[in-house]
Amino acid sequence: MAFKTDIEIAREAQKRPIMEIGEKLGIPAEHLLPYGHDKAKVSQEFIRSLEGGKDGKLILVTAINPTPAGEGKTTTTVGLGDGLNRIGKKAVICIREASLGPNFGMKGGAAGGGYAQVVPMEEMNLHFTGDFHAITSAHNLLSAMIDNHIYWGNALEIDTRRVSWRRVMDMNDRALRQINVSLGGVANGFPREAGFDITVASEVMAILCLAKDLGDLQKRLGDIVVAYRRDKSPVYARDIKADGAMTVLLKDAMQPNLVQTLENNPAFVHGGPFANIAHGCNSVIATKTALKLGDYVVTEAGFGADLGAEKFFDIKCRKAGLKPAAAVIVATVRAMKMNGGVAKADLGGENVDAVKKGCPNLGRHIANVKSFGVPVVVAINHFYSDTDAEVAAVKAYVAEQGAEAILCKHWANGSAGIEDLARKVVEMAESGSANFAPIYPDEMPLFQKIETIAKRIYHADEVLADKSIRDQLKAWEEAGYGHLPVCMAKTQYSFSTDPNRRGAPTGHSVPVREVRLSAGAGFIVVICGEIMTMPGLPKVPSAEVIRLNEAGQVEGLF
Amino acid sequence: MAFKTDIEIAREAQKRPIMEIGEKLGIPAEHLLPYGHDKAKVSQEFIRSLEGGKDGKLILVTAINPTPAGEGKTTTTVGLGDGLNRIGKKAVICIREASLGPNFGMKGGAAGGGYAQVVPMEEMNLHFTGDFHAITSAHNLLSAMIDNHIYWGNALEIDTRRVSWRRVMDMNDRALRQINVSLGGVANGFPREAGFDITVASEVMAILCLAKDLGDLQKRLGDIVVAYRRDKSPVYARDIKADGAMTVLLKDAMQPNLVQTLENNPAFVHGGPFANIAHGCNSVIATKTALKLGDYVVTEAGFGADLGAEKFFDIKCRKAGLKPAAAVIVATVRAMKMNGGVAKADLGGENVDAVKKGCPNLGRHIANVKSFGVPVVVAINHFYSDTDAEVAAVKAYVAEQGAEAILCKHWANGSAGIEDLARKVVEMAESGSANFAPIYPDEMPLFQKIETIAKRIYHADEVLADKSIRDQLKAWEEAGYGHLPVCMAKTQYSFSTDPNRRGAPTGHSVPVREVRLSAGAGFIVVICGEIMTMPGLPKVPSAEVIRLNEAGQVEGLF
Repeated sequence: MAFKTDIEIAREAQKRPIMEIGEKLGIPAEHLLPYGHDKAKVSQEFIRSLEGGKDGKLILVTAINPTPAGEGKTTTTVGLGDGLNRIGKKAVICIREASLGPNFGMKGGAAGGGYAQVVPMEEMNLHFTGDFHAITSAHNLLSAMIDNHIYWGNALEIDTRRVSWRRVMDMNDRALRQINVSLGGVANGFPREAGFDITVASEVMAILCLAKDLGDLQKRLGDIVVAYRRDKSPVYARDIKADGAMTVLLKDAMQPNLVQTLENNPAFVHGGPFANIAHGCNSVIATKTALKLGDYVVTEAGFGADLGAEKFFDIKCRKAGLKPAAAVIVATVRAMKMNGGVAKADLGGENVDAVKKGCPNLGRHIANVKSFGVPVVVAINHFYSDTDAEVAAVKAYVAEQGAEAILCKHWANGSAGIEDLARKVVEMAESGSANFAPIYPDEMPLFQKIETIAKRIYHADEVLADKSIRDQLKAWEEAGYGHLPVCMAKTQYSFSTDPNRRGAPTGHSVPVREVRLSAGAGFIVVICGEIMTMPGLPKVPSAEVIRLNEAGQVEGLF
Repeated sequence: MAFKTDIEIAREAQKRPIMEIGEKLGIPAEHLLPYGHDKAKVSQEFIRSLEGGKDGKLILVTAINPTPAGEGKTTTTVGLGDGLNRIGKKAVICIREASLGPNFGMKGGAAGGGYAQVVPMEEMNLHFTGDFHAITSAHNLLSAMIDNHIYWGNALEIDTRRVSWRRVMDMNDRALRQINVSLGGVANGFPREAGFDITVASEVMAILCLAKDLGDLQKRLGDIVVAYRRDKSPVYARDIKADGAMTVLLKDAMQPNLVQTLENNPAFVHGGPFANIAHGCNSVIATKTALKLGDYVVTEAGFGADLGAEKFFDIKCRKAGLKPAAAVIVATVRAMKMNGGVAKADLGGENVDAVKKGCPNLGRHIANVKSFGVPVVVAINHFYSDTDAEVAAVKAYVAEQGAEAILCKHWANGSAGIEDLARKVVEMAESGSANFAPIYPDEMPLFQKIETIAKRIYHADEVLADKSIRDQLKAWEEAGYGHLPVCMAKTQYSFSTDPNRRGAPTGHSVPVREVRLSAGAGFIVVICGEIMTMPGLPKVPSAEVIRLNEAGQVEGLF
């Protein structure tokens, strides 16, 4: 079979002018700030004018633990948005922006696939509307101001060994992970150890995605802990007087970006915090704006439901006061087989036993999402090689779990292939059966919050943490940070902290290696295992083949 | 007297939709890519469609050596553009984009002043249309690919001590001037010395501003020398296979940005290479596009005429085949006084003698510009405290030099204050008296090119250079780079290399400290004295007071 590639399909898109897409949502042209003819930002003023209006229903798209087979979470998010519009609902899609750096390594685009895509795909994978560049600038302005403060006398008495605020770049550049700065003599400052993270790992990114307006943004930026003194007391970005200028640099980036699907339905693409050291969801401001404008808002969260859905519920929904009406868990027959122990090379050919063997991974995610009081449906994202018997095996398993699995062919057929799922989602959302609550209360001690997630979501027996980590958590509780949610950073490939343990492992423990305070974003990061905050490029980076073709189109990016 | 500030005037601007400004120039709406409602990029396709058309007349605005009193070169460029439109000529302004980083230190905006400004001022001083961010990304992608190449085996045999390609950031951050990278163990690469420059100092910036189209851009990017082997043979960006991906990152940035003056006349604001280690002019593509669209194009060059005009003529015009029709040298009475030895604090009160004493600085610039075969007029940018006698003294001096000085009040009165200058410029341009030629031929040996500029423009007695520098120049000649122009990097405050020698010094020598090959940009940088390629922030950076006010407007940036 010969398929068109995603980029070929995207280039054939019959895009409508973005002002027309905005009009569908009732956004007047003067409140759309165009970036070219197919992208626009929604003005802060218009967003403020929506306050007090009625909210649509919020649908989360999440997934099983990712496998190399691919699940298609974004593709299903886009497809479901189109499907809901097809059956007469006014639906808006909310997804994250793509990071530029990794596209020059090996990662492809992040705008869906097949006939369920958001366009313009090339630009979304390059500079888009410049939001990530603004975040990079704001982050690094603070970095420069910290070293400048030290240079000019260090009135705040910052311990130069304890500057926790690093620099960022939207690039995969391992050489910058650990560096020594201010070398070369008196004029260049006081030498110290430092380093760069990738922009999506910046706390500024997490803050932008959680702030409810520009005032809240500035307050959160001021709350960032940038360093400590010798007595270990914190120094804040506010002390450095960087919060005002950072807000100025971020004022346009705070405005959600409107684009469209291949079927000309509206999609907000805004923000993109790392799904490990941050919460991995698109911006609160985009989601809330979409809820005012649409009957349905379809959004997604990073990685599998153990990380993505948990943080969506316990961080984003808790903090923004959002009440999801239903959740879709995306699975594929191929991924079920891999969870059942089949290697990627052996995925060809029917293997119903392997599908059945992998299903408990899906089963645990169903139970977990339900435990937040949110009704669940499973979307089987169809792959052309799936056999009827394999699909039937997944459906039967899901039915045993008290849920329904629906075969979806949006990748091949667009909205026409996902009508059944759309109808089911409407039925669930309108039944009013949702009764959302986070899995732990604000007032629970920090370590107990970690244990709650580890035991109830990961099904681990215990959490292992050194005394120094427990002491640090207690110190933060005493400093007034005890009410914060915890942001788990662990491998996305398994419920456990071992990426090779697929399926639904039990009897494991969760070792906490490190904890970090993100006081501006408003969570405690709990690092279990190795977390890479600055990726490297592979031996043959895709940048080597990325180029403009004769027609001026981008080749090699996808 | 109470004056409105530049920003107050800018905020009162009656801006027209940018599509209307484009229409004035005959650019169809579908070929304007809007960025908000008041900025747009002109499509590559439209620019290509202009090929073969008739060119308007090119007017250079340059200045005496800058003093702390301020000369108002950009203000006069904008004013003259408005003035030409006022007297019925279709005139287009071409100026440079502002660097973001320095705005958070102490520098104000770079969009003109008073009633001769380009708007939207705030955005031009922040992210604008993202061009500089694109340059930063393209530059740093190459940097990451170099270290990645070394990491994965170093097949090109790069000597890690001889990586000449640094990294860039659009920020004043002295801590990054000299750093050690790839620390922390095997996974992070081979430790080596490195550093960051500010983005405007990137060779990518100079290349973008000199490339005639996307094909030329990619060729020049490939030509960049990034490192040397132990045998000192060069390694090019093309060898690293970065040129295609860099071109993709720069494809939008190559499209000139259209904005408007306070009087709704068109202005291209595009590119902004450093005026010391690069040539300090706006992009060739913007200037050439403007020449196809307007009867007159008014542009400027960085610093005083000794640096800016010389490089405009010998690098930009030579390489792009431009033929300037006339030049305006901007001077102020206050700056004449400072050149005459008066301190800034003593500028109040009439002082005709000091004015006369400072005039030889202006006189030498007049003679220099004429020596390129370009007719000259002097614009006296009026300051409210100037007395009639002081103005008369400047006029009389300029008349003695065989030129005319015209008093201009565009700062206070907009185009109505600069009609006389506009008429004089038209008279000169239409007289056909211009007979432009660069000051040295391509085939002159490199050292002799340096001597030609030093003696004929700076009026120095000699050029001092170590044998190692002369040998390096000879080596480049043998390697085929002998035909390149030289790009002088010296203090802008004096004809000499001593910033304190105002007026028209003689008897000095020009010591060459270092020479650098910018093979992609296509020039040899000749460094005379200290050149700072990464600025620092002052003790109290303006970032500390930059913030959004209650109305959501930016305060403290100007």
